[in-house]
Amino acid sequence: MSYIYSYNTRDIKFILNEWLPVEEILGFDKFKDYYSKEDFNTIIDQVRKIAAEVIAPTAEDGETIGARYVDGRAVIPPSFHEVYRYMQDNGWGTSNVDHEAEGILPTVLNGLLIEIESAANPAFMPYVGSGSGAAAVIQKYGSAAQKERYLPKLFDGTWSGTMAITEPSAGSDVGDLLSKAYPTDDPEIFNIKGNKIFITAGDRDDVGNVVHLYLARVEGAASGTKGLSLFITPKYWVNEDGSLTPNDLECSGIEHKLGLKGSATCALAAGDNNNCRGWILGDLPDENGRGQGMAQMFNMMNEARLDTGRLSTAVTANAYWNAVAYGRERVQGRLLTNPKGDRVTIDKHEDVKRMYLQNKATTEACRALLSKGYYYEDIREWAPDQERREWAQRKIDMITPLCKAYPSDEAWILTAESLQSYGGYGYCEDYPAANATRDVKIWSIWEGTNFIQSMDLLGRKWRQNKGQDFAALLKEVQDFIAENKGQLEAFEKEIGFLEKALAAYYEIQGAIFQYATSGKPQLMTIYARRILTATAQLYCGYLLLDQAKIALKRMAELGEDHYDYNFYLGKVMSARWYLNNAVPNVWHVADLVKIGDTSVIEAPEAIFDY
Amino acid sequence: MSYIYSYNTRDIKFILNEWLPVEEILGFDKFKDYYSKEDFNTIIDQVRKIAAEVIAPTAEDGETIGARYVDGRAVIPPSFHEVYRYMQDNGWGTSNVDHEAEGILPTVLNGLLIEIESAANPAFMPYVGSGSGAAAVIQKYGSAAQKERYLPKLFDGTWSGTMAITEPSAGSDVGDLLSKAYPTDDPEIFNIKGNKIFITAGDRDDVGNVVHLYLARVEGAASGTKGLSLFITPKYWVNEDGSLTPNDLECSGIEHKLGLKGSATCALAAGDNNNCRGWILGDLPDENGRGQGMAQMFNMMNEARLDTGRLSTAVTANAYWNAVAYGRERVQGRLLTNPKGDRVTIDKHEDVKRMYLQNKATTEACRALLSKGYYYEDIREWAPDQERREWAQRKIDMITPLCKAYPSDEAWILTAESLQSYGGYGYCEDYPAANATRDVKIWSIWEGTNFIQSMDLLGRKWRQNKGQDFAALLKEVQDFIAENKGQLEAFEKEIGFLEKALAAYYEIQGAIFQYATSGKPQLMTIYARRILTATAQLYCGYLLLDQAKIALKRMAELGEDHYDYNFYLGKVMSARWYLNNAVPNVWHVADLVKIGDTSVIEAPEAIFDY
Repeated sequence: MSYIYSYNTRDIKFILNEWLPVEEILGFDKFKDYYSKEDFNTIIDQVRKIAAEVIAPTAEDGETIGARYVDGRAVIPPSFHEVYRYMQDNGWGTSNVDHEAEGILPTVLNGLLIEIESAANPAFMPYVGSGSGAAAVIQKYGSAAQKERYLPKLFDGTWSGTMAITEPSAGSDVGDLLSKAYPTDDPEIFNIKGNKIFITAGDRDDVGNVVHLYLARVEGAASGTKGLSLFITPKYWVNEDGSLTPNDLECSGIEHKLGLKGSATCALAAGDNNNCRGWILGDLPDENGRGQGMAQMFNMMNEARLDTGRLSTAVTANAYWNAVAYGRERVQGRLLTNPKGDRVTIDKHEDVKRMYLQNKATTEACRALLSKGYYYEDIREWAPDQERREWAQRKIDMITPLCKAYPSDEAWILTAESLQSYGGYGYCEDYPAANATRDVKIWSIWEGTNFIQSMDLLGRKWRQNKGQDFAALLKEVQDFIAENKGQLEAFEKEIGFLEKALAAYYEIQGAIFQYATSGKPQLMTIYARRILTATAQLYCGYLLLDQAKIALKRMAELGEDHYDYNFYLGKVMSARWYLNNAVPNVWHVADLVKIGDTSVIEAPEAIFDY
Repeated sequence: MSYIYSYNTRDIKFILNEWLPVEEILGFDKFKDYYSKEDFNTIIDQVRKIAAEVIAPTAEDGETIGARYVDGRAVIPPSFHEVYRYMQDNGWGTSNVDHEAEGILPTVLNGLLIEIESAANPAFMPYVGSGSGAAAVIQKYGSAAQKERYLPKLFDGTWSGTMAITEPSAGSDVGDLLSKAYPTDDPEIFNIKGNKIFITAGDRDDVGNVVHLYLARVEGAASGTKGLSLFITPKYWVNEDGSLTPNDLECSGIEHKLGLKGSATCALAAGDNNNCRGWILGDLPDENGRGQGMAQMFNMMNEARLDTGRLSTAVTANAYWNAVAYGRERVQGRLLTNPKGDRVTIDKHEDVKRMYLQNKATTEACRALLSKGYYYEDIREWAPDQERREWAQRKIDMITPLCKAYPSDEAWILTAESLQSYGGYGYCEDYPAANATRDVKIWSIWEGTNFIQSMDLLGRKWRQNKGQDFAALLKEVQDFIAENKGQLEAFEKEIGFLEKALAAYYEIQGAIFQYATSGKPQLMTIYARRILTATAQLYCGYLLLDQAKIALKRMAELGEDHYDYNFYLGKVMSARWYLNNAVPNVWHVADLVKIGDTSVIEAPEAIFDY
């Protein structure tokens, strides 16, 4: 058994009960009759139990059985069928995205519940999530007829869905996709022709239908992303009476991947027999050939980006707790401070503790960042005040690239540190560390590579609304500094680092703007990924200090002997480690950016022969 | 076919022909009648051809067939048998470590040849290397009888060997191993009892015997590493007449690993039937119970550490060239500077070029560092002058931890960047990138974890010979700066960075010494790994600039139209990228060290529940 579920939910409870001002959300009409803060811990404990007892036992099947391609279809492990039904039938699945239903979970809670679930079997989760994404888009953009035809069976999980975007020759380059939609007699129905790849949960043997939201270009529509439309293009066409007819959309293979082997990553062939129907979502392309597909898809995509950060955080954190559990049993070496003493468990060695604290602090940073995202989503959806909703949307816009890229970049470093802490056993698949490193690697790539995220941040988000939205994000950090400087004795040094990092960040922005206006726009590209990391570190440094401030207070109230004291002490240590070790990277990146090295730009491609 | 061999040897030729002063080595008695500089390129081309045509085609078998455990023994892919024999029979194998033979290859050349070979099938290489290591130790420390009995068949590859060190409860903690050696009637022969794990090539079905150099403690000898002795403990005991008798040393299993699946990582059980004989190497433990085992083993270990850096560099560089080959074919997106233009191959995108140049510069840095090591090894072995030999040994001592840890740490980052450059295909095992990431991970762990390397550097090498040996290493950097400052217009900025980094490095040392003497010795431990990286970056920054200086000159001589111009331009770009992007990390680490964060030290283990 290489998969071990070791998730601890204490930080999640802290976020919901003590850190985020969730009262506002619970006061919204959507939730006020259904949930109160007192319910949170109970629900979290219940989901933790489901994750451990229902979901986690299936993880091993993902590795040993895996998703397979058999007789023209994707076949997934039988235990995945069961857990999928369990989740859908017990209120933990797609029904939560039904915005017209009563009693759905607030995202600020459900976002964290899905983290708990994801850690239990990351290869399984997309089988639920992909249907939820498709259902949400249909509910938002679909006609009454489309909703009636598709939503009930998507919401109850009888069918699932996908977003079918990527093509063999159009990955990052979505605007160049080749899938075409040809008009038919029915103005809403098109004949779809094309090939898609990398469609997560794009085919499966546990549901009656897979409803693809298929991105294609209506014949004659504009080139590039602006000409794209989204089509409901199911595996089985749903007739008016509810009966199903094969829709000439076949799974042509699945990928043999580094990790997440239980997750079927499918290639799809649409219209090989010129008989694949797609039902256009929203309006036909306008007189300029502009479709609504990209905008509709981004609605799904932004949540998928948060989901990617969440998967990264969940697997990384579980790998860390696995490593800690191992380190508490494994005896090796003696203390540096007592070299003649008894041998000790490795969790007492400084460098091992360093690996643990780096993991702990960074996953808590990622979780704090993502939780902000979930929190804003509820406000964006349900706040009665339009202005407040728009405010939340702007916040989401600013942090989405950070939420996607930072946890997925860190996951590669952090899971490797967890693996390293086992010594040679870390390299053996009988222990859980290796599996985690294999699983996490895709997340820096899918849903827009981390480079695309960084260009979204620098090229779009920095400038959105004339730069005011991003300035508002930085102002959160600035206000925190102003409010706490000289007020928090235990963190004087750390607040100083945050201040130094903020100043350095302004220098980064200044340098990039100067390069852009002085004929060196490519320098933005060269430094983009490093700047994204620095942005996340700056913002997360503030978030962790904000949390630690609460923890300090609680420590003083509870005293050292209280059972919860070590949790709060841990929050303080996380903030200290992060501010002293991660946040200084912001001024390091500023140093690099100011150097403005042009070697990459000047290098002709031919030098890479060598 | 996921494995593709794309090795380019131009940098290796540059190192041997233009950079390192190999004339001294070729003038040694050992080599002067056999090799001249003119032979190098021919030999390199020949080995490149063997690597591509003989070794590389077996790599896939390592993944698909793998090493298996069948009926109590390790079974390796049949194609590995053939290539092993080919290497041994054609002068590319163990015979090169026979110091008494004529015409062996100088290490400065062979070290680089093995890099070329390693990239072709990293899982295969230890099947040759492990026998070479054992043979070298027996030749150095064995009695005449031992040499006569074992060396001929080790040198010609009829038998292979291992170093059997690690045990289930003694990994990093060698001094606590449990294997025991009990005296017999013959004072040189002991009864060995114990278990070993993680023995690379510890069992195999392609050779007649496996000669383990088995680390164990003579009953009653001192505790800790000082009481250990090394025993020739073969799988089959070799009788005086050359006949073989089973030696009660069994392979009890092999590991199921993340990568290097063709390499059999064996568990060994010695003396389960109390009938395992070991022939002690060198002297019996002295009157204080001190054995010679550790010192003997370190002779093997230091070379194994260079070998680890070499494997890391080889696999990383091959993954980089694989990525470049892919990037030259893969069309995606448009140029930032020409967004309305045609789609381009991805090797033209800035961030992709950044990933390539980071890979190119860093692998060249690692190769330069390792080459210094090979060069010193020849001087240490063969220089007529004792003082010169000792000088070379001191140099080897200083750089060995860098050679082991820096390339293996970077390999994880760099192979991931190569993988990232493919987009989603990088995550698919049909492409070669994923395999490379799986292979490299062990190298930060085996032969002494990279933390052990960093403590070796800080705790031992910084202080060796009252600090003079390490000071001499830093003086190389200082002298380079003094000699070139104001003299190299093209690199003024870069030499400035090197100077700034050297100053920062002195601050790192100062801070660590101050912590050590002011009751905070653990801070050395906390920062050790980061300091090792900074040390390598400082030293490699100097090496790459030293190479680029030659390249600049050659560019001026050859002119832009010369076919070799781009190689030299590439050397200049590597140095520029490295000095502008990697070397600044030295002052970043100095910043961190000076902060002196004690959070890891203060953190009680209990906080890692959360």
